[in-house]
Amino acid sequence: MKVNLDEKLALFNAHWSPKLIAKLNDYEIKLVKIKGEFVWHTHEETDELFLVLEGNLTIQLRTGDITLGPREMYVVPRGVEHCPIAEGEVSAMLIEPTGVVNTGAAGGNLTAKTEQI
Amino acid sequence: MKVNLDEKLALFNAHWSPKLIAKLNDYEIKLVKIKGEFVWHTHEETDELFLVLEGNLTIQLRTGDITLGPREMYVVPRGVEHCPIAEGEVSAMLIEPTGVVNTGAAGGNLTAKTEQI
Repeated sequence: MKVNLDEKLALFNAHWSPKLIAKLNDYEIKLVKIKGEFVWHTHEETDELFLVLEGNLTIQLRTGDITLGPREMYVVPRGVEHCPIAEGEVSAMLIEPTGVVNTGAAGGNLTAKTEQI
Repeated sequence: MKVNLDEKLALFNAHWSPKLIAKLNDYEIKLVKIKGEFVWHTHEETDELFLVLEGNLTIQLRTGDITLGPREMYVVPRGVEHCPIAEGEVSAMLIEPTGVVNTGAAGGNLTAKTEQI
């Protein structure tokens, strides 16, 4: 079945809580809404792809910031500490292997379980 | 470095010749321009993700057609024979493991080597 990104984005409002919309082999395609600052964290085992759909997202890195607008993407390399931040609301697609925890090894109260929509 | 999809799309015109724009672990993120009908083929070893950026793409399956507009995606399951077709020009993102050949096991003169842009 095809997946319409805008129909899926209309199904949720919570920030920092990725929603599963499709699987590709052992990878998950997720949508996430973002506002404010996340937590600095690292995924030691995998790269992580961010593709912005709406809004402007800054991915803070220890070496400088990457700012993405709509139709811009960035792959955070495995092992690189990062912290997303957005002044306004952002909608983005995330792609990473199944089972990756959003807060990586940092944990904390922004840790979310990925729900399928 | 971030990747702007529209800047990358402006760099090529050839149809049916996927261009590598990023890597995610052992997966490739590619852009492709499509017009006309491809060749029926199967990827026995992997799913294949199509995300349409511009235009309307039909993915013909032996069980029926899937038609995608902008911001719509479909994952062709591994082993499922398919044939993309588009009346007008389509720009799409493809995601699949590194080394997948565009024509699968079918081969033929539409087989393209993936070039990085």
